Amino acid sequence: MKLTSVLSLLTAVTLTTATPIEVEYGNETLNRPLIHMTPTYGWMNDPNGLWYDSKEELWHVYYQYNPNDTVWGLPLYWGHATSKNLTTWTQHDVAIIPPANDSGAYSGSIVVDYNNTSGFFTESTDPAQRAVAIWTYNTPESETQYVSYSTDGGYTFTNYDQGNPVLDLNSTQFRDPKVFWHEESQKWILTVAKTQQFKIAIYSSTNLTTWTHESDFEREGYLGYQYECPGLVKLPLPKNDTTSTENVLSYSNGTLVSNNTVPAETDKWAFFISINPGSIQGGSSTQYFIGDFNGTHFVADYPNTNVIDLGKDYYAMQTFFNSPDGDVYSIGWASNWQYSAYVPTDPWRSSMSLVRKFSLEDFQANPETRILNIKSTPVIDYDVFNFGETFAYENETLNTNNTLHYDLAKNFDGLVEFNLTFTANSSAYGNHDFAGLDLFLRGDMNKNEYLRLGFGANAAAFYIDRGHTEVPFVSSNPFFTDKVSVNNQPSEYVTNEITKYKVYGIADRNILELYFNDGSQVSTNTYFFTGGNFIGEADIEVAADGVFEIEDFQIRQMTLKL
Amino acid sequence: MKLTSVLSLLTAVTLTTATPIEVEYGNETLNRPLIHMTPTYGWMNDPNGLWYDSKEELWHVYYQYNPNDTVWGLPLYWGHATSKNLTTWTQHDVAIIPPANDSGAYSGSIVVDYNNTSGFFTESTDPAQRAVAIWTYNTPESETQYVSYSTDGGYTFTNYDQGNPVLDLNSTQFRDPKVFWHEESQKWILTVAKTQQFKIAIYSSTNLTTWTHESDFEREGYLGYQYECPGLVKLPLPKNDTTSTENVLSYSNGTLVSNNTVPAETDKWAFFISINPGSIQGGSSTQYFIGDFNGTHFVADYPNTNVIDLGKDYYAMQTFFNSPDGDVYSIGWASNWQYSAYVPTDPWRSSMSLVRKFSLEDFQANPETRILNIKSTPVIDYDVFNFGETFAYENETLNTNNTLHYDLAKNFDGLVEFNLTFTANSSAYGNHDFAGLDLFLRGDMNKNEYLRLGFGANAAAFYIDRGHTEVPFVSSNPFFTDKVSVNNQPSEYVTNEITKYKVYGIADRNILELYFNDGSQVSTNTYFFTGGNFIGEADIEVAADGVFEIEDFQIRQMTLKL
Repeated sequence: MKLTSVLSLLTAVTLTTATPIEVEYGNETLNRPLIHMTPTYGWMNDPNGLWYDSKEELWHVYYQYNPNDTVWGLPLYWGHATSKNLTTWTQHDVAIIPPANDSGAYSGSIVVDYNNTSGFFTESTDPAQRAVAIWTYNTPESETQYVSYSTDGGYTFTNYDQGNPVLDLNSTQFRDPKVFWHEESQKWILTVAKTQQFKIAIYSSTNLTTWTHESDFEREGYLGYQYECPGLVKLPLPKNDTTSTENVLSYSNGTLVSNNTVPAETDKWAFFISINPGSIQGGSSTQYFIGDFNGTHFVADYPNTNVIDLGKDYYAMQTFFNSPDGDVYSIGWASNWQYSAYVPTDPWRSSMSLVRKFSLEDFQANPETRILNIKSTPVIDYDVFNFGETFAYENETLNTNNTLHYDLAKNFDGLVEFNLTFTANSSAYGNHDFAGLDLFLRGDMNKNEYLRLGFGANAAAFYIDRGHTEVPFVSSNPFFTDKVSVNNQPSEYVTNEITKYKVYGIADRNILELYFNDGSQVSTNTYFFTGGNFIGEADIEVAADGVFEIEDFQIRQMTLKL
Repeated sequence: MKLTSVLSLLTAVTLTTATPIEVEYGNETLNRPLIHMTPTYGWMNDPNGLWYDSKEELWHVYYQYNPNDTVWGLPLYWGHATSKNLTTWTQHDVAIIPPANDSGAYSGSIVVDYNNTSGFFTESTDPAQRAVAIWTYNTPESETQYVSYSTDGGYTFTNYDQGNPVLDLNSTQFRDPKVFWHEESQKWILTVAKTQQFKIAIYSSTNLTTWTHESDFEREGYLGYQYECPGLVKLPLPKNDTTSTENVLSYSNGTLVSNNTVPAETDKWAFFISINPGSIQGGSSTQYFIGDFNGTHFVADYPNTNVIDLGKDYYAMQTFFNSPDGDVYSIGWASNWQYSAYVPTDPWRSSMSLVRKFSLEDFQANPETRILNIKSTPVIDYDVFNFGETFAYENETLNTNNTLHYDLAKNFDGLVEFNLTFTANSSAYGNHDFAGLDLFLRGDMNKNEYLRLGFGANAAAFYIDRGHTEVPFVSSNPFFTDKVSVNNQPSEYVTNEITKYKVYGIADRNILELYFNDGSQVSTNTYFFTGGNFIGEADIEVAADGVFEIEDFQIRQMTLKL
């Protein structure tokens, strides 16, 4: 490990080699998502350097970017986009440029160095804009951690040439540094993956350039081939939502206790680790652990692993530094390395997930046990939309002979959201019956292309089938799993026999995000219909009588205001 | 918890209530597996009470059984089958009968009480046949652990009425006891699931009827909805396979060490836990942990979880008591609760997996790290077969313009095995290419029904696509995932660029077992072709030139001798 202590003011040297090559792209297919961030052209993977500029009130997202092709390749840049509303995005020029054509500015993070601990800034840079990027410099010989800083609000970065690399383990498998400010110890903390050792190294620093190794978190969860993209965030424990003082909730070691003499914890730490390849879903996935972090070591309350999104398209999740309200906001890469190079979009490949707010909840994992769970809430600014008609339905028991059918507007923009709350009555079906509730979302030009979503009461699981399309990629690619499921506990036990479930869904041209029971579980999956065949019909059908009552169903189309 | 100490000789009372109801079954479909054990008729789930009778040299398998229907239902019995060769099976009358029609003889295990520690036996029962069953008695009110014993070699069982239940926690979620003899402490050890607490309780006993709670193993791995079917087995650490004394391998805390001064461990313990519903694959899955067991507590070397079979159809795995060679043999239920009630077989539903031998290996999880891994080897007695022609191919580089095609014999019996060893050259394809090797196994009557297996070099994963069939269940059931994948490390690094992979597959009419790299990973998946449409053609195709060399491919059909 190479440590430096060069803290004097540095000469800014903007990296200028390896500018994008001019390439010709084909005609754009018509199904570019509206509110899921995509690069204008070229290849994108991991989200990087997420931060909030409180001076400009602007959210910055960077990303692994190959502008020269629609597949991954070197040189690899940090692409850059910003948003005022976390819903629509403006693309900018590349922000970090790798010094050589056979190298990459691999994944990393950005912090705001308000107090100029690094010494990189003068008074001419507003404290709220003192962005310091810590990222992995990948060459054929090694992966080391580099520091760069921006004096123009995050649009261009200057390499810390005098001190880079700030971390060097003489390894080719050492990457994805994520830095945050640890208030309790008054230090910067960096987590970084020793990928093939299944270890996340934790370092501390007072100046962002000299780093001290504190501990390794190793071999928890499911290993797959390697660990990538670590992240450590503090989340407040759920608040007591009752008014009775006798029911004050308190926590000890992450477990809800009723004994008020136990000193109450107020927050927990969540440790995120992405694995690829070799996740159990196949390919890429992000897991997490909940526990305590003391400034040097993370210890999980229990060694059990959790998966932050159970779909096939959510990876390399990173959280924002410095959110204005102190809440934890995140973005994941909405694709899967198993098939990301072949998805039928042009002249770009892949999108990000929606921004999600994370919070801890007491999750009823089964009737006997509650566990701490991360709940995901999508962040959407509805002011940016014009809306189509809202179709609604409520308080009706569905049977096999009454199907709900909604003709949405034709030639709308392909962005649709729905809310479905229903109950299932377990006394109304037997072991022979398939007690399923289906929601079909069909194309407006070609209704043979559709998404089938639903709930199987016998299996106590929601399902998604994205296989019904005429796009050849979907059937021919052997890794593009069509049927994905999510086990779900009820959001409410209405009676012993009647249980309630909720799902919120948003389909954005080629990506579907499903939030079950107010975000207790999430499944993100891309889908591919023929260009321009947007969702324009919805049907709800049930496979058994007397089982399902629709408490509330609403669906509407949305388009961006001009 | 209720403990008893009634150890005097007991009066045998054979349970005789709740005999099978006479029901009519439809015509049998033609695709009943030949060497995967199925019940003659009715519903089967978990394997139970696996043991070996060394007097008769006979393997016993019991199973959760509803003879009155082809879906799960009460009363639930222990069905029973035996085998001399672990390949073909003889069905017998039900072995354990639940006392009431609204109750079940739920899952459990059998041990041989050679030394009559229980006091259940007289000299008239051969020590090798002193079978004692420990199982869960499920009623609408509770789940408790029952003991029964057999004096006729395991065909009928007598309930230990004076002492049952031997374990009662006043719980409805307490089941699946698995017992083994712990030589080091000279005690019986019982593991049993407190399912909804995500705990496996460990008990000890000297007499099989009085049990002492020693510890709980809790909240490791992925939780899903609940824990079921625990099991704890000792496995020898891999032997040194070099001849150089300087390369003697030794282990410390399960990690291979070269320092010969560290005292060498000779074995490890594997703790198996099944979860359902809510596995990451969807539905049912079996995970395991490797560590140490001291007679009272199991401690995992590392908290990471492993999955014993990455397919969608392998659950409730149990190991045999008392194998003749001391090795560990196992059987899993080859289905998934998400869809087991709907699979198109009649008049039975579901089969067991092949018997597998488990052994520990140093698994190269990636170029930097070796981990202890359980390797699975299928147990097949080839003396029971007549064989079709063996088709073979070797040492040839495949390109997109040369496809291998094999016409196997028509109207064979639908049992096919193959071995494929190949190398992939990573310098021969780019990031745009899909460097795939496909093996198609097609129906002999209808070649539009086929299994697509293969390897994607870019994703470093094997894939299986079981979705190409005209059987309506396959497309209509939303949980019957078509595309399943398994991340695979090479079995050998031939050069920096050329890596070798192996797969052994056996397709038995409606179930495919794939063993990758000599069983380092396994994927078991059922498939459904039209009745009588057996595999009769094989094709190998590649999607990129110069990447794949077939080092060896062999395929042959098999049928049972009359």
